Amino acid sequence: MHDDLIAALRARLGAANVLTEGDLSAWELDWRKRWRGKALAVLRPGSADEVAAALQLAAAHGVSVVPQGGNTGLVGGGVPDDSGTQLLLSTQRLNKVRGIDAANQTITVEAGCILQSVQAAADEAGFLFPLSLAAEGSATIGGNLATNAGGTQVLRYGNARELCLGLEVVNAQGEVWSGLTGLRKDNTGYDLRDLFVGSEGTLGVITAATLKLFPKPAASLTAMASTGTLAQCQALLGLAQRRLGAGLTGFEVMNRFSLHLVAKHFPQLKQPLPPSDWTVLLEYADADGEDTARQRFEGVLGDALEQELINDAAVAESLAQSATLWHLRESIPLAQSEEGLNVKHDIALPVSAIPEFCERTDAALAAAFPGIRLVNFGHLGDGNLHYNVQGPEGGSAAEFLAQHEHTINTIVFDAVAQYGGSFSAEHGIGALKRDELALRKSPVALGMMRAIKQALDPKNLLNPGRVV
Amino acid sequence: MHDDLIAALRARLGAANVLTEGDLSAWELDWRKRWRGKALAVLRPGSADEVAAALQLAAAHGVSVVPQGGNTGLVGGGVPDDSGTQLLLSTQRLNKVRGIDAANQTITVEAGCILQSVQAAADEAGFLFPLSLAAEGSATIGGNLATNAGGTQVLRYGNARELCLGLEVVNAQGEVWSGLTGLRKDNTGYDLRDLFVGSEGTLGVITAATLKLFPKPAASLTAMASTGTLAQCQALLGLAQRRLGAGLTGFEVMNRFSLHLVAKHFPQLKQPLPPSDWTVLLEYADADGEDTARQRFEGVLGDALEQELINDAAVAESLAQSATLWHLRESIPLAQSEEGLNVKHDIALPVSAIPEFCERTDAALAAAFPGIRLVNFGHLGDGNLHYNVQGPEGGSAAEFLAQHEHTINTIVFDAVAQYGGSFSAEHGIGALKRDELALRKSPVALGMMRAIKQALDPKNLLNPGRVV
Repeated sequence: MHDDLIAALRARLGAANVLTEGDLSAWELDWRKRWRGKALAVLRPGSADEVAAALQLAAAHGVSVVPQGGNTGLVGGGVPDDSGTQLLLSTQRLNKVRGIDAANQTITVEAGCILQSVQAAADEAGFLFPLSLAAEGSATIGGNLATNAGGTQVLRYGNARELCLGLEVVNAQGEVWSGLTGLRKDNTGYDLRDLFVGSEGTLGVITAATLKLFPKPAASLTAMASTGTLAQCQALLGLAQRRLGAGLTGFEVMNRFSLHLVAKHFPQLKQPLPPSDWTVLLEYADADGEDTARQRFEGVLGDALEQELINDAAVAESLAQSATLWHLRESIPLAQSEEGLNVKHDIALPVSAIPEFCERTDAALAAAFPGIRLVNFGHLGDGNLHYNVQGPEGGSAAEFLAQHEHTINTIVFDAVAQYGGSFSAEHGIGALKRDELALRKSPVALGMMRAIKQALDPKNLLNPGRVV
Repeated sequence: MHDDLIAALRARLGAANVLTEGDLSAWELDWRKRWRGKALAVLRPGSADEVAAALQLAAAHGVSVVPQGGNTGLVGGGVPDDSGTQLLLSTQRLNKVRGIDAANQTITVEAGCILQSVQAAADEAGFLFPLSLAAEGSATIGGNLATNAGGTQVLRYGNARELCLGLEVVNAQGEVWSGLTGLRKDNTGYDLRDLFVGSEGTLGVITAATLKLFPKPAASLTAMASTGTLAQCQALLGLAQRRLGAGLTGFEVMNRFSLHLVAKHFPQLKQPLPPSDWTVLLEYADADGEDTARQRFEGVLGDALEQELINDAAVAESLAQSATLWHLRESIPLAQSEEGLNVKHDIALPVSAIPEFCERTDAALAAAFPGIRLVNFGHLGDGNLHYNVQGPEGGSAAEFLAQHEHTINTIVFDAVAQYGGSFSAEHGIGALKRDELALRKSPVALGMMRAIKQALDPKNLLNPGRVV
């Protein structure tokens, strides 16, 4: 079946770029090994025109297409289903940096560029591209945009959406929309760009983007501080925002158990401060210079000590020490994996609601599941917590997950809704949270989303079964 | 005709809020007196539910609705046509500040709040709401969002879109979408928010919004500098961005003739620097304090003098002096009005393209219309120029406009397209630029915009004839 389609795709993309044989698990299996699909073929187009040709052929044959970037998603949005009837469209050969416009502070890259290579290209040209997240060594910029990725510098620079000025997109009809503008202001009609950003490949395939660059800061400093409560963390955030303004580029919190797991599984990583209920990681960037930056930063931390918002603090003395502090933070998910399976949540709340939300939800979970252990950490500056639930010590993590994931989700997501939060802050919907979306999003919003999907992809050929 | 509809509206909104008699020109005539319409009635609903009821009734009677905020638009997007069959829906009674969340740094306001009153409410709570534009004393925040307004601090804080976290919207079906989230991260489905922002009332009626607040800077400083060329202005921008980072909140340029007109028509306004081909207005905000801010700012200007990017500079010594400098800049449109009618353009270009664009387009216009006078000023930091064309001295401005507007637009917009620019940077499309949109936007983009309009407003009841 579909031999004609495969033959036509081979003729257009080259046989080497239409894979149907051998081990295709690099594309068919997600990196966490939670979803395994079976593709009709894996397509590797080399240009927007080839993507367009592929989508036209797919549409003509009524075959659906799943776009995929670096396959680092967390919600099962980028692997085909197991029917063997979907085309997997990989952007990996769309990997050129098309250009840098220094005076305009923009870079234009193809969707398959690895995030780290975009950062590197910006750096070489004397600029900062600030999107940064754990998977940056394999995630693609197209995937980052399709999922509106967040990361560690959202506080200052915004999500992937805010970093994007223009897009090139192939729509479900196989037409190329050349919207690669580098303009800061452009009010000519509806905001198609932001509709495609975050649509997870269900409305079109992003093939290239023009992104904002920023001057490199003259100095970047990292500090760790220990505090007793989330309310103190929140007060420290307010103080740091007032005093450091846009210089505050990162504000991460980690609960005691997160860093305990890091100490347990990675004892070789030195922790600069004694264990504490909450630890904060602050990042400060300054356009002026190292000396004044350090003075300012230490001044704020000194005042926080005096106001008893924190108990202790350590400012990294070198880039190497900064890297060590960030490494501690970034080791939490790995330490969690070592500890065993767990129920992950990627939630957002108004910053003001976080202390009360955590107090109540922690208590509700502890009451429902005695001995439960919370790995609570994340980007407090953005109101984004990775509020993860690990089963009681000694029990089987897999069994706990299988048995209680649904109940735990209900407790957490009900509380999130009560405090005006989001059950998916930066990871998206994909397949994993589609039911949650249908259940929890307002019917009015869902109705409009479905109308838009129907309008732009009437045959439901693009990543069907995801998002809406 | 439509007596039933009017009666039903009166029953629901109150007779005082369904106006059909007397002088309705406050709503039927735009403030520049370019468009005069005739409404079936002027509606002044007092809540989102009343807006919803009005739209349901309008839909049931097949009557279209034109939403209006402060009626300060520049493109004829907010007044009814002259058929006497459209309902004008004014948001002016939706004027409550619903709340401020200090720890979350957000404010929730209704659509009819005057921009200045939003700024004032933020200020009272100890925060900055940075959207700022000439019409802020009468423009509403709903109108600012519906047109994605820009203004003078976009360089640092972004357009209205970037300042908006959540919306409450009544759609064409008369359903209320309660999307008033104050979240910095929320990836639960398509980005409806940014679709409504900038859609000029053609997809729904914005009734309230949750907006970002920022800590007030500890010090704000303003400077004026004179230079010889746009290339020097551009180099100064780059230097200031590198050295001042996010502290650079405004970067405006004015050509010689702009300030000449201000001097001619407002001789009482003292100009601090001698006339020059280009004058730059810089604004710098610092979280640290006045002394260090002044040192930094003067350091950058000193280096710019040394590098011969500028010939002269004056830093305001007081808030009053700052206000005077800004007053000069903001007097340009008024001075232009005094001089007579002119062809206005609100264009955006990549910053890198501006010197060459201006050189070529200035020359093309001078060749086509000897004696033509260019009032060229705007937000260079955002690539946004108000590139306005005044007829030759002594001739009839009105005749010149009537005779040559179309040709001038063609010359300017063709050049804008050639350099990858936008023919509407911050004013929108409305009625004025709808043909231009149809002509100049890519057919693929237009097709998708029309599909979205059709999907969300299938009966074409919301602001028909505008945008698409």
